[in-house]
Parts: sequence; C-alpha cells; structure tokens
Amino acid sequence: MFTTRIHPRFSDTDALGHINNTVIPVWFLEAREPVLRLFSPQLDMREAALAVVRTEFDYLAETHFGCDVEVRTRVARIGNSSLQLAQEVWQNGILTTRGLATLVNFDPVLRRATTIPAPVRTELEKHQGGE
Amino acid sequence: MFTTRIHPRFSDTDALGHINNTVIPVWFLEAREPVLRLFSPQLDMREAALAVVRTEFDYLAETHFGCDVEVRTRVARIGNSSLQLAQEVWQNGILTTRGLATLVNFDPVLRRATTIPAPVRTELEKHQGGE
Amino acid sequence: MFTTRIHPRFSDTDALGHINNTVIPVWFLEAREPVLRLFSPQLDMREAALAVVRTEFDYLAETHFGCDVEVRTRVARIGNSSLQLAQEVWQNGILTTRGLATLVNFDPVLRRATTIPAPVRTELEKHQGGE
Amino acid sequence: MFTTRIHPRFSDTDALGHINNTVIPVWFLEAREPVLRLFSPQLDMREAALAVVRTEFDYLAETHFGCDVEVRTRVARIGNSSLQLAQEVWQNGILTTRGLATLVNFDPVLRRATTIPAPVRTELEKHQGGE
Repeated sequence: MFTTRIHPRFSDTDALGHINNTVIPVWFLEAREPVLRLFSPQLDMREAALAVVRTEFDYLAETHFGCDVEVRTRVARIGNSSLQLAQEVWQNGILTTRGLATLVNFDPVLRRATTIPAPVRTELEKHQGGE
Repeated sequence: MFTTRIHPRFSDTDALGHINNTVIPVWFLEAREPVLRLFSPQLDMREAALAVVRTEFDYLAETHFGCDVEVRTRVARIGNSSLQLAQEVWQNGILTTRGLATLVNFDPVLRRATTIPAPVRTELEKHQGGE
Repeated sequence: MFTTRIHPRFSDTDALGHINNTVIPVWFLEAREPVLRLFSPQLDMREAALAVVRTEFDYLAETHFGCDVEVRTRVARIGNSSLQLAQEVWQNGILTTRGLATLVNFDPVLRRATTIPAPVRTELEKHQGGE
Repeated sequence: MFTTRIHPRFSDTDALGHINNTVIPVWFLEAREPVLRLFSPQLDMREAALAVVRTEFDYLAETHFGCDVEVRTRVARIGNSSLQLAQEVWQNGILTTRGLATLVNFDPVLRRATTIPAPVRTELEKHQGGE
C-alpha cells in the first residue's frame, strides 16, 4: 500500500462548506504518482505513461478543510498491460471516499498499450496487501 | 436529454498535451446544473442540494483543447430520493468520455435524504430519452 | 475590446459562498484566447505562444455563482515583443475584478522573445479602445 | 517568514509542459494559511476572514512538475485593518515567481473591515524579516 498525505486547500472547498467532490479525482491522481515512478523513476513522460481508462468514486462522508487527509493506494489487480488501483481518502479516522482506477501502461513512443515489464510487476505485487 | 456546451480552457490541459482526466468531473458537474434547477430554479442552496454519492467515468478517447465539447446528460434512473444521470462528452463527433452519477435529493435544513417531489419527478421523466 | 462570456461553475465557489479569488486568473487566461488567435489562428503551440510575465488583480466586489459573467479584454499597450492587456470581470452590471496582464510573444522553436509581427500589431491596435 | 512545502500535481501542468501560471495563485493562497491561523487558530470562518483585495505576480522562470517547491511568505506591511504579504516560489534553488498580496481583516459577522487585534499585530511583526 502507498500512503500520501495531502493538505486540503481553501480553494478545494465549495459553497456547501466542504471539499468539492471534483477535488477527490485530483488527490487520487496525485496519490498514484509513486505507482508511476515504478514505471519511470524520473517521471519522464517520453519514457512511460499510465493512461487512465476508467475511474469510479464512492462518496461516503464529507471531507473537510482544516485537517490533512491520507490517501491510501493499493494495487487491486495486475493484468498484462493494465492494472487496477483501489484508493481511499481518510480524514480524522473516517473513510470519506473510496475509488477504483483502471490504468493502462502506455508506450509514449509507439502510442499503444504495452506489457507491464516483469521487474515493475514484481514491485506492484508488493503493494497488493491492505497494510 | 440536457446538452451543455463547454469551452475547454488552456489550464484544463496537462503536459501530455490534452485535457487532463480530472477536468471531466468538473464539466459533468457543470452539466448537471439544469437538473439541479428542476429542484431549485434559483439554485438556492438553502432550498435544495443534490449530494453526489457515486460517480464513474470511462475514458474512451483523448479530449483536446481548441474545440468546444458538448456534454449530454440523460436521466438514467429515478428512485425515491435518488436519481442516476448518464453523461457523455462529445467533441468533433467523437464520444470521448462516458460517465454515470448517482445523486441524492438532500434537504439542507433537515440534513438528510428526502423524497423527490412529484412535479420534479415528472420533469425528470421528460429527460429519460436519449434524444 | 474582446468580450468573453463565462459560466461560473459550482466548483469555482469556496466555503465563503462566492467565487474563490484564484478562479479569476483562470477566467482571464480563457478570455485572452482571442488575442492568442491573432498570433496563431489554430492555437498551434509549435507556432506561437504568449508567455505570461506579470499579472495583477484588483478585487473590487464578490463574484457569485448562478449568473454568467462577462470578461472584457482591451489591449492597453503594445511594445516590441510584449503587450499589456487590461481585463475586467462584469456581473449583473457590477465590475467585480480588474486585472492587467503583461505577455511576451514567445517563439517556441527559438525559445526566446520575438518581435510582434506587423499584421498582428495592426489587429491588436483595433482592440485598444474601451468600446 | 513562513515557509510552505508544496508538491506540484500532474494536473497543475499544461500542454506547454510546465506548471500553468494560474496554479501559482492557488499555491500562494495555501501558503497564506499560517497567517490566517494567527487571526483564527481553528480557521473558523465565522470568526475571521482575510479578504483578498489585490494580488500581483511576476513570473521569472518556469516551474516544473516532478520536484517540490517551497513558498516563502513574509509580512511586507501592516496597516490598521490591512496587511501586505510578499510571497515567493522557489524550486531547485531558483526563484520562479514573486508575488504580493494585499489582504483586509474582515469581520464575518459585521461584514466589514476591522482593526487588526494588537496580539495578532505583534505576531505578524515577527514575520517581517526576510529570513
């Protein structure tokens, strides 16, 4: 599991007084960065990209401004060229949002999906557990 | 069906050269505004709110800067207090993203889900068709 | 003068109940698009770019959700390779924000500032007036 | 001086390949949070608010994705009800953006500018130095 600490910004709130639901996809994208670094340690976009093909979000509770959140990212499934990540937002011990992202290992030069390299697969497997 | 024309902003792009995937939830939220107006014509948040409980997105093709998109919003299902909207992003005749949003009619005073009023239900039913 | 109609998004609001001040720079950027089109009609970034070197904003009144705004953009000054744009946000007859942006005509190939071409200069001069 | 470490998000980039200029105001807002906490330690918006009346930004160099930035915030001037903050973005030892924000101590109940309380003034004075 990867954990990413995020500081909600005042501009992330909306007129209902809490974090706007469109901000969670931004946080989840940020929290997938350590996964992308397994494919390209320097985050070099000419080297590797993870194309987002599907995302889903279950909003379970309001997320608030004024208190950091922890985003937990776990590898849920590893395919040939695709992988699925289960992500969660935790704030003050409350699970506020749960999400699932399906990504494809995309070769920026060939511009098509490509097999996940064996060493990356080995690393991904280490992050399949919940803890 | 509701249709909303949206002008992609340069700040909506990312370093991969097209619209970042986190922007689509923002567009879909904007395109749900006519639905919210059925509940509260003046968009008065003390009167009515649609709480987002679940969203999902299928990214089918890249969306680009430099050309308007049309977001199509159709009522997919009407429950007692909840409703489901099917949404699509179209650009240059290409369906780039498909989404589904589950919303709950939320009473801001009582702070709980509440039955969709009959006149609103009648209006919602008019937008169930694909055209 | 160029005028751009913008529809405030609910996600543009913050917990104080009105449009967050960081959204105005995004609107001003969008409203500068017709100016960029004078340099590159197809908005081709390999052809032309306007580098932002300075921006300033005077927040005169709150901007609200639920009502379109008009952004007015006037050419304030034309230099050799730079230009200055005066921009205003109007909502319901109220001037809510005034801004000034200094841009430099940037050659993406040579990667340096370059003289504003004479035909573009002629076009820019047509937008110097307030009306 | 206050220092705030910020992790650029991939969604903060634009198609030119670096951080979009409209993201810097968001970072500066986030970096003003410790100043707001001097007025309201719990960031209670019914207690205190700092209304933004003017901001300005000088873009000196590109800011990039893939490397944290440090935002430095110094109190530049303390008036009766207003204060001015000088802010800077530093990345890899390079000053990429310089900004100035004029804020007014706003009483959310009376809905008007109000004198900066003496104890807050004393705290603000400690952050006037450059180091």
